[in-house]
Amino acid sequence: MSAPTATSAATPSGDAPAGLRGVVVTTTELGDVRGEEGFFHYRQYSAVDLARTRTVEDVWFLLHRGHLPSAAELAAFRAEVAPLRVLPPVLVDVLPALAGGSPLAGVRTALSLLGAAEGARPVLDLSPQQRAADALRVCAVVPTVLAALHRTRAGLPLVAPREDLDAAANWLWMLTGAQAPEAHVRAVRRYLVATVDHGFNASTFTARVVASTGADVVAAVVAALGAFSGPLHGGAPDRALDALAEIGHPDRAAAWVLEQLAAGRRVMGFGHAVYRTRDPRSVLLRETALELGGDRAELAVAVEERVVAALAEAKPGRALHANVEYYAGVVMATCGIAPELFTPTFATSRVVGWCAHVLEQAADPRIIRPSARYTGPAAPVPVP
Amino acid sequence: MSAPTATSAATPSGDAPAGLRGVVVTTTELGDVRGEEGFFHYRQYSAVDLARTRTVEDVWFLLHRGHLPSAAELAAFRAEVAPLRVLPPVLVDVLPALAGGSPLAGVRTALSLLGAAEGARPVLDLSPQQRAADALRVCAVVPTVLAALHRTRAGLPLVAPREDLDAAANWLWMLTGAQAPEAHVRAVRRYLVATVDHGFNASTFTARVVASTGADVVAAVVAALGAFSGPLHGGAPDRALDALAEIGHPDRAAAWVLEQLAAGRRVMGFGHAVYRTRDPRSVLLRETALELGGDRAELAVAVEERVVAALAEAKPGRALHANVEYYAGVVMATCGIAPELFTPTFATSRVVGWCAHVLEQAADPRIIRPSARYTGPAAPVPVP
Repeated sequence: MSAPTATSAATPSGDAPAGLRGVVVTTTELGDVRGEEGFFHYRQYSAVDLARTRTVEDVWFLLHRGHLPSAAELAAFRAEVAPLRVLPPVLVDVLPALAGGSPLAGVRTALSLLGAAEGARPVLDLSPQQRAADALRVCAVVPTVLAALHRTRAGLPLVAPREDLDAAANWLWMLTGAQAPEAHVRAVRRYLVATVDHGFNASTFTARVVASTGADVVAAVVAALGAFSGPLHGGAPDRALDALAEIGHPDRAAAWVLEQLAAGRRVMGFGHAVYRTRDPRSVLLRETALELGGDRAELAVAVEERVVAALAEAKPGRALHANVEYYAGVVMATCGIAPELFTPTFATSRVVGWCAHVLEQAADPRIIRPSARYTGPAAPVPVP
Repeated sequence: MSAPTATSAATPSGDAPAGLRGVVVTTTELGDVRGEEGFFHYRQYSAVDLARTRTVEDVWFLLHRGHLPSAAELAAFRAEVAPLRVLPPVLVDVLPALAGGSPLAGVRTALSLLGAAEGARPVLDLSPQQRAADALRVCAVVPTVLAALHRTRAGLPLVAPREDLDAAANWLWMLTGAQAPEAHVRAVRRYLVATVDHGFNASTFTARVVASTGADVVAAVVAALGAFSGPLHGGAPDRALDALAEIGHPDRAAAWVLEQLAAGRRVMGFGHAVYRTRDPRSVLLRETALELGGDRAELAVAVEERVVAALAEAKPGRALHANVEYYAGVVMATCGIAPELFTPTFATSRVVGWCAHVLEQAADPRIIRPSARYTGPAAPVPVP
C-alpha cells in the first residue's frame, strides 16, 4: 500500500483513514503490539515474559536506558530513584485542594504544578540530560502523588515511600501503610510490568505530539493524563469488575451479554482495538488471578467462557475476547485495591511508558502537525 | 494523490509523511488556512476582516455557536460570559503557589485544578450541553487567571474583570488596573481576534486528540497548553522583539541575518510552516503598528524590508516573510504589555479556538489512534 507524500508543506496530500487508524506516524525502538499474534513486547523482550520475572524498575531501566539492567545497575538505579519518590513540599501543601476531584485530575494538576515549580529554567534550555532527569522524577513521584491523593481523600495520614521496596511493593505499602502479602506484591508487580507500555495508544500519541513541539516532559505527561482520562481510551477495570458482579453467576452471562448489546452498551472487559486474539495481558492476569485464588477468580473464568461464546454468536467474525481490564479488576480487588484505585494503579506504571516515548520523540525534534479539510461554507463571505 | 486505507485496525497501512505533514486527519467547519494565498478564515469570514471590525466575543460566538451574533445575541452572550470571568475562590487560594513558574505552566495548573474542582461529575456523563458550558467557562476564565498570575508574581493586588468591557479592553484593564487608551484597545482587539484560530497547528491538534478519547474540555485545553509551550510551536513574539532591539538600525539588518544563519539560529519573526506569502496576520499588525505610531513601528517596517531581502538572497526560493510574531511584539509593546505577557496574551484568544475544536471533535466520538513502526531488534529474545 502506498503512503501519501507531501507535495508541499501547505497542501493536504490526502485524507487519512478515520482516526488515523493504521497510519504510521513515526518509528520507535521501544516496542510493538502484534495484534494478529496476540503478542506485545518492550524492546526485544516479550512484555508478558518480563512481567513474570522482572520488576517495574527493570523495565523502566530497559525502556529509558536501552537494555535490561545488571544486578549492579539495578541497585544503582533503585538508589537513584528512591529519593525522587518523596513527595515534594510544594505538593504536600496543595494536596487537600487537589484531592476533591478524580485521582487522574489530581495527579495531572500536581504534576503540572511540580513542573512549574521545578521548571523555572527556560524551556529552551532543555537538554537531553535535563529531559532524562525530568522523566525519572515524574515516573518516581507519580505513584506517591496518587497514593497521597487517595489517603488525603480518605482522611488518612500519608505514608512515605520505602526505599527497600520495589515499585509494586511500595505502591501497596503507600496505599495501606501495611506490608502486603508476597502473593499480592507478585500479582500487582505482574500487572504493573504488563501495563508499562502498549504501542501507540491515544495517550502515548498525545505525549509524543506534545513532545514534538519541544515542550518539556511534564507538559507531555500532563497531556497524556488528559487523553488517558477519556472513556474511549478504554481503561476502566472498575467497570469490568462491576459487570462481573452484575452477572453474578455463569448461567447469567449469555443473557447479560444480549442485554448489553440490545441496549447499545459496550460489553465492558471484552474486545480490543488491536488484538484479534486473546489479549496477552488478559491471559497473564487470568493465570495470576487463579494463582491468587478465591471465588471471584473462579467466577471470572467461568463467566469469561460464557461471554466469549455469547459474543461469538451475537457478533460472528468479530473475535471478541477478554481484554486487560477484565482480569485486572479481579487481580486488584483480590489484592485489596479499591476499585477507584484501579485506573490510578494503571497510571503508575503507564507513566514509565509515556516518558520513554517522550524521550524518544524529543530526540527527533520535528513537530507533528497534520492538516484538516475545511467543509464549511465557501470563504470569504463579506463580514456583515 | 491516493490516501492510505486501513486494511484492518491492526495493520499499519503505510508510513505517513514525517510529522504527518499534509495528512488530512479530519474535517472541520471552523475555518482554514490557505497558505498559498496568504489567507485564513473563521467559518466563512476572512479572519483579518473580522479582526478589523469585530470583537473577540463576536468571533467566540461565531466559532462556538455557528454564526455571527446579532446585536441582541452579542449582548446576551456578553452577559452570559461576564460572571464566568470571575476568578473562582479555589484558584485565589492557590495562586501564590502557581505564580512562580511560567505563566503558561501556571494557567495549565490552574485550569487542571479548576476542572477537578468543578468537574466532580463523572466524565462519562458529559453531555454536549455540559461540554459547551465547560468551554464557555474555560474561555472566560483563562484571561483572568493569566492576569492574576502576572499581578501575583509582580506583587500587585488583583484587578477584578469588568462586565462593561469586551475581552480586549478587559485584558488591558486586568493587567494594569487602568483604563487603556482606545487606540490601544483597538490594536489589542485586532491582535486577539486575528489569533483566535489558525488551522491545524500542533496545540489545536493536541486538543482534538485528547477530545477524541471522550475526555473533558479541561483535559483537552490543558494538553493544548502543553503543546503551545513548546519552542517549535512558534509563538515567541518576545524573542522577535528582542531581535528587533538587537538589530537596532535598518542598516544592521542584513548583517544580522547572516550572523543568525551562520550560527544555525532561527531568524525569529520570519518564516511560517504554512504561508508561502506574507502572513496575513503580519500584514494586519504592521498596519496596526503604523497606526499606533512611534519609532519602534518605523524601525520594524524598515528592518522587515531589509531582513526579507537578505533572506531572499541567502535562501532563494524559500519566500520567507515576516510572520505573526514579528509585528505582534511591536503592537503589544507599544500598548504597554510587558514581553513576558506576549505569549500569555496570545493564549487568552487562542483558547477560544482550542475550545471550538474540542467541541467539534467531541461531536464525532472516534478516537484518534495512529500507529508506529517498530525498528528495534527483532522480538522476542528470551528474557535473561
